[in-house]
Amino acid sequence: MSHSRTVEIEGHIIDSGTMQRCFGAVMDLGGSFDVEQFDVGTHEEAESYCRMAVSAESPETLQAILHELHQNGAVLEDPSDVELVTAPADKVVPPDFYSTTNHPTEVLYDGEWIDVERIEMDCALIVDPEGGPDGGPRAYTKVLNAVEEGDLVATDQSGIRVNPPERPRSGGGAFGFMQGGVSSERPSESTIREVAEELREVTEADGNVMVVAGPAVIHSGAGDALAELVEAGYVDSLSAGNGFATHDLERSLYGTSLGMDVETLEHPRKGHKHHIWTISEIIRAGGIEAAVEDGIVTEGVMYQCVKNDVDTVLAGSIRDDGPLPDTITDAVEAQDAIREQAHDADIVLMLATLLHSVAVGNCLPSTTKTVCVDINPATVTQLLDRGSAQAVGMVTDIGTFVPTLAEFVLEGEDGGIAVADGDGHPHAEEE
Amino acid sequence: MSHSRTVEIEGHIIDSGTMQRCFGAVMDLGGSFDVEQFDVGTHEEAESYCRMAVSAESPETLQAILHELHQNGAVLEDPSDVELVTAPADKVVPPDFYSTTNHPTEVLYDGEWIDVERIEMDCALIVDPEGGPDGGPRAYTKVLNAVEEGDLVATDQSGIRVNPPERPRSGGGAFGFMQGGVSSERPSESTIREVAEELREVTEADGNVMVVAGPAVIHSGAGDALAELVEAGYVDSLSAGNGFATHDLERSLYGTSLGMDVETLEHPRKGHKHHIWTISEIIRAGGIEAAVEDGIVTEGVMYQCVKNDVDTVLAGSIRDDGPLPDTITDAVEAQDAIREQAHDADIVLMLATLLHSVAVGNCLPSTTKTVCVDINPATVTQLLDRGSAQAVGMVTDIGTFVPTLAEFVLEGEDGGIAVADGDGHPHAEEE
Amino acid sequence: MSHSRTVEIEGHIIDSGTMQRCFGAVMDLGGSFDVEQFDVGTHEEAESYCRMAVSAESPETLQAILHELHQNGAVLEDPSDVELVTAPADKVVPPDFYSTTNHPTEVLYDGEWIDVERIEMDCALIVDPEGGPDGGPRAYTKVLNAVEEGDLVATDQSGIRVNPPERPRSGGGAFGFMQGGVSSERPSESTIREVAEELREVTEADGNVMVVAGPAVIHSGAGDALAELVEAGYVDSLSAGNGFATHDLERSLYGTSLGMDVETLEHPRKGHKHHIWTISEIIRAGGIEAAVEDGIVTEGVMYQCVKNDVDTVLAGSIRDDGPLPDTITDAVEAQDAIREQAHDADIVLMLATLLHSVAVGNCLPSTTKTVCVDINPATVTQLLDRGSAQAVGMVTDIGTFVPTLAEFVLEGEDGGIAVADGDGHPHAEEE
Amino acid sequence: MSHSRTVEIEGHIIDSGTMQRCFGAVMDLGGSFDVEQFDVGTHEEAESYCRMAVSAESPETLQAILHELHQNGAVLEDPSDVELVTAPADKVVPPDFYSTTNHPTEVLYDGEWIDVERIEMDCALIVDPEGGPDGGPRAYTKVLNAVEEGDLVATDQSGIRVNPPERPRSGGGAFGFMQGGVSSERPSESTIREVAEELREVTEADGNVMVVAGPAVIHSGAGDALAELVEAGYVDSLSAGNGFATHDLERSLYGTSLGMDVETLEHPRKGHKHHIWTISEIIRAGGIEAAVEDGIVTEGVMYQCVKNDVDTVLAGSIRDDGPLPDTITDAVEAQDAIREQAHDADIVLMLATLLHSVAVGNCLPSTTKTVCVDINPATVTQLLDRGSAQAVGMVTDIGTFVPTLAEFVLEGEDGGIAVADGDGHPHAEEE
Repeated sequence: MSHSRTVEIEGHIIDSGTMQRCFGAVMDLGGSFDVEQFDVGTHEEAESYCRMAVSAESPETLQAILHELHQNGAVLEDPSDVELVTAPADKVVPPDFYSTTNHPTEVLYDGEWIDVERIEMDCALIVDPEGGPDGGPRAYTKVLNAVEEGDLVATDQSGIRVNPPERPRSGGGAFGFMQGGVSSERPSESTIREVAEELREVTEADGNVMVVAGPAVIHSGAGDALAELVEAGYVDSLSAGNGFATHDLERSLYGTSLGMDVETLEHPRKGHKHHIWTISEIIRAGGIEAAVEDGIVTEGVMYQCVKNDVDTVLAGSIRDDGPLPDTITDAVEAQDAIREQAHDADIVLMLATLLHSVAVGNCLPSTTKTVCVDINPATVTQLLDRGSAQAVGMVTDIGTFVPTLAEFVLEGEDGGIAVADGDGHPHAEEE
Repeated sequence: MSHSRTVEIEGHIIDSGTMQRCFGAVMDLGGSFDVEQFDVGTHEEAESYCRMAVSAESPETLQAILHELHQNGAVLEDPSDVELVTAPADKVVPPDFYSTTNHPTEVLYDGEWIDVERIEMDCALIVDPEGGPDGGPRAYTKVLNAVEEGDLVATDQSGIRVNPPERPRSGGGAFGFMQGGVSSERPSESTIREVAEELREVTEADGNVMVVAGPAVIHSGAGDALAELVEAGYVDSLSAGNGFATHDLERSLYGTSLGMDVETLEHPRKGHKHHIWTISEIIRAGGIEAAVEDGIVTEGVMYQCVKNDVDTVLAGSIRDDGPLPDTITDAVEAQDAIREQAHDADIVLMLATLLHSVAVGNCLPSTTKTVCVDINPATVTQLLDRGSAQAVGMVTDIGTFVPTLAEFVLEGEDGGIAVADGDGHPHAEEE
Repeated sequence: MSHSRTVEIEGHIIDSGTMQRCFGAVMDLGGSFDVEQFDVGTHEEAESYCRMAVSAESPETLQAILHELHQNGAVLEDPSDVELVTAPADKVVPPDFYSTTNHPTEVLYDGEWIDVERIEMDCALIVDPEGGPDGGPRAYTKVLNAVEEGDLVATDQSGIRVNPPERPRSGGGAFGFMQGGVSSERPSESTIREVAEELREVTEADGNVMVVAGPAVIHSGAGDALAELVEAGYVDSLSAGNGFATHDLERSLYGTSLGMDVETLEHPRKGHKHHIWTISEIIRAGGIEAAVEDGIVTEGVMYQCVKNDVDTVLAGSIRDDGPLPDTITDAVEAQDAIREQAHDADIVLMLATLLHSVAVGNCLPSTTKTVCVDINPATVTQLLDRGSAQAVGMVTDIGTFVPTLAEFVLEGEDGGIAVADGDGHPHAEEE
Repeated sequence: MSHSRTVEIEGHIIDSGTMQRCFGAVMDLGGSFDVEQFDVGTHEEAESYCRMAVSAESPETLQAILHELHQNGAVLEDPSDVELVTAPADKVVPPDFYSTTNHPTEVLYDGEWIDVERIEMDCALIVDPEGGPDGGPRAYTKVLNAVEEGDLVATDQSGIRVNPPERPRSGGGAFGFMQGGVSSERPSESTIREVAEELREVTEADGNVMVVAGPAVIHSGAGDALAELVEAGYVDSLSAGNGFATHDLERSLYGTSLGMDVETLEHPRKGHKHHIWTISEIIRAGGIEAAVEDGIVTEGVMYQCVKNDVDTVLAGSIRDDGPLPDTITDAVEAQDAIREQAHDADIVLMLATLLHSVAVGNCLPSTTKTVCVDINPATVTQLLDRGSAQAVGMVTDIGTFVPTLAEFVLEGEDGGIAVADGDGHPHAEEE
């Protein structure tokens, strides 16, 4: 095989599966490898190092192999500066532009590796030679529709280094390392307890908890529990849709969700117009915040979000009724708002919504902790497939998950009731 | 259309959907009807009566229509005595024998309508002319493999009357009237609360609660809650398989279920041999009861069943390991045991098992209340499809359903803790 | 019960289940009824008539019952003209405005029943006293966000008559009458054959076939078959999303779908950037039509849609990459475009997309034939739940459904190959 | 950490994931490792070798780690002969007996590594010191209920070596290497084509094709296609249940499956008694073979199995009607019959049955190729989870899968029609 290049890979590359994937990629794509040096970390804290020559019959195959190795963290033995091409027009990237992964990434510019800011998958990678705080270079991502004429866009992977997540050095509890597997027979209460603890820890450390919620949260009767979590200060941002908000507001206005009394199950037929009437009431009031201020809306998740200044994004969809005046109907505008929420999040709870969870997942770096809960195993699988390093998927009924989670979060470990103090952080109530 | 017969239908036949199904059957099968008399019940307690002539082009089509009408409760205007043919050999029924529905049924014998005992679907209907308590006739069902040479087997529907369930005169709460529809977005806690109340009512009325449980009950961590319900006297019979019992016993012996610590989630790998070791321990002890007596098994569902004299059937299956000495490996023998349990039950809880639930459902009359819980909507749909008149299906995680149910049952309405008194019936504990 | 009103119901009200639902509604809601007259249609073509007094303890309960009866086609014995209130501002409807069903509807205006145009669920019902073709009154629906200041909006149901779909007088083949039930064990090829025949019939009668398609159509390898149907003239409008179009275009540009070679399964890793590169190529070309004209896109569904002038709507979503320049990113604008497609359709094929199918279903009257195909039973159930009178749901793999459907459609009954002639209608090719 | 042992691991241990799992096991269980030697295979054909010392705080933890490493193919640096204990009674194994994996296994006996015959998971490992062909030692597995008093049962893993499957050196097409992942969006026809080719190759090489089939195969209309495969010589053994056989026989006797005409969909109501009548007809005939010989059964899968001497096992279950006289009702007896089929199989097709597939899977070594097809992703996932090295899972409709598979198998590559010649092997028919 006449075409060959040498790459280097280092880190916890055996136990994180990196070497398995790299060797596998070479073989799958029909190439061959020649390991020139392999220093195996002799104990669990020691990193390993591999240098190998990779060969292929054709330059195209070699390129495909190198691309795959690159995605797994390999760099050429002799990397050159990242190649940059000027964007010819707004929203137009150069052909063969470098499309980002969601892993932490560096670019080699002017002989130095610099971190890429706001990492997110499927973006263009822009280098601004003088945009750094000290007038030095700065690198960051841009989604296609944000690219502007004149942007310097990376086009070759040789000057780019990807750092895929490594296996944590300890067990990791509920948050497994890219396990991917989703089972509907997993223990429920004990896993929820671990998620609750994680939520408490993030909040106590002044971190950011993002909740992505679908309408089933309300319809299944879990709205009160989520509202409690918001009120107690455990939710920093809420990303949802017009349907979620309408269901929640309908509960406050009529005590129903899609016309069904969530408490008593009685008279399920009486109120199937409540949904559309709710929307028209909020339109008349001028929006959700106005409806809260006017005393029209007096409880529920949206009420608590207004009262507790939770950063809320309601993204529109073609299946919406109404929509509510608060709903961002333009998809690109909504994505931009969601992107800001996602980049700020330390942990994301995805509750019974595929659409909004995928939208959020698209913006998340692989290092953000993620919890996906849905009764449909296919939904959970699809969300976990997006490569979050530390993710837990639960196939369970949202109507029992959220109340149980809220109970575990709010009871705390010492049995006290946790409530938010003035600065929005929860503390155990004194007894 | 030259072939015609006249039938009568009576009862709450409009609001129970009977007339819709009857008219529909005639039209679907290409016949025509001529309503000769229709007395509509003028208020909700008044029954209706319909007499109509049904015609078809061919005797075969007419027969098919009459068969369908029969299943929905219609009887010929001029019914004759049931036709009986002697079974020629053991397990062999006459050709075109009458195969039962699961609805309450009567046969016209010697000019009198007599009730068919032990009604169950897909059975032969046997009449014993002198088998009644007073030497009069008796009618009952037999599964095919129980038919004996000489049995008098019904072969024609004209002397048989089926009484499909009618819509209850009031709303009905969780237990809907053949609604069939199963949604994964239904409210959870409120429905569970209604099931809990039903369980309490049945038990307080000295009724019989049957639990059908799959291994996921244990593996999801719900075993303790089910054991509590058994201990408190809310379970009269348990129908399960070798896997359920083994998982439960493994928890008592090793604290794991299929090797995973259900509480802590830690060290999931340590114990994947516990399953098979558990079976060999019970074999060595000579069975579950012996293992309980020897102090080898000290907690769990099977332990409580032994201690509380719960009627337990463990039915074998080709996927079993072992099996345990208590497992009935012959399917026909196991069915006979399950049949006895099913006929005694006033309410059946089907928890996360399709196989055992179908086996039980096959033996149940349509009048027995049924609760089906599974995380797979297809399982719940299939179980509710079997025509139970009062059934509730829940698509939810069994690992949260059973603990929540137990909590609601045990807390009762007055806040007291319900426990079993000497005669096995629960009462609220005095405080 | 001191509060009472008399209503009339007529039509095939027994075999369509109308009376069952009406009697059930009264009982469920705690009222009582007194049937004053009931003329039962004595044969299958004869309609029935019912007049009954309905009573309830409170005016609220009576109102709830009457509302339910109204939805099922009942009218007050003494209906008055529809009550109209002027919309106070754009997008603002009067309180308690009448919200439409998706069934054919009439309003009583100036003593005459007039048909409501463009019927669609959850809309306001507008009457324009002089908007008719002859200067007479006209009634039509408007979604909330289209309501304009000054519109005359209906607010009371008493002058409105709903006509829920009735059971067809014959069997109906694949297109059952609101059966709702969805089974994954239904025969496949024979049902697909019936759908194919329906498609041929609609097209031959110059009807309108609307296809709603999700990305799985392309990813599962069914794109070629759908493109063939478009090319042969069997698709009049296509409603899809940015993802569907991008997958399809990626196949034309790179031979892959989300990077996987749909034919060979080989080298699945090579192309996971093709998706985003495809979008940037189309942006560069200025849109799909331009890319087809420039010879960049040379095959596939989108190519055939451009070439065959198929009315195509690509609706944006927050999970989109890019998006393509052709994608309508504003949800309200996209809904309006989808609404036009839906109102023109005679039959709608919903292929492996929940989001777009729900959006289309929201705009469809209950009389439009609908075929829903998805591998997830929950998706099919949800779509069929929307009350289409003639709908068929299939839980099956879209990757085999579409090719099989195309084969059956294109082979026709005489074995010839059907292709589109000049006017866009297919004919059997001469051999 | 004061407790320590040294182990060796060799083979393609990096790209097969073995080292990742071994390092992970040590860390997950709280131990530590010290790599003493690691020779990395420098190219894809070269094997690697690792010797490492493993330490833990307690002997129990060390034991747990060693157990896990053992399962992944590690052996102690200084292995001793396998420890054998005599079984004290029939069906009773010694405490802590060695329970087998489904991977190829060797035992060290008298200083020599000998292969374990009939490898299967969760079995006892028996050594017969003089049972070999030359009077030497022989090792084999026994399920618990087959253990006899006096058997020499292995109790310690130190003299046992497990050989987990290694990554094939080439890509592998449809049959991926323990990928596990199951997607409902995978391409369908191309994967089916690869399975078809595999089936042809196995059959042409005189290999053994085992089909495991559920009732949905018949009910979905795929019975004819399966019967064709049997007739053409592509099926060597069939493992199914009473339900599958009854549905298939009902089609031959009445043209229906559970009463529904699989071809026309017409008159679905007419025949819901056919199922039970079919069983009684076969009972009357004395069994399936007798019914074929008597001309009662004239087509279908069971007919072809009788005519083509296919090794058929019908295993009973508690949900069976009847059962048929051919059904083995005792679960242990049925397992023994299934075990013989499974051990003979070179490739296993699992078609739309969880119960029978799990039963078969329990008996399969990890080296047998397996194809699982079901419309429920959870079923496919569960079956692939059992550790088959080369498995393909497809979430698709069995009603289109089997006909498509049969078409691809029977058309062959040269376009000829393949049929079985005298010796049961298919050949292309001469034209």
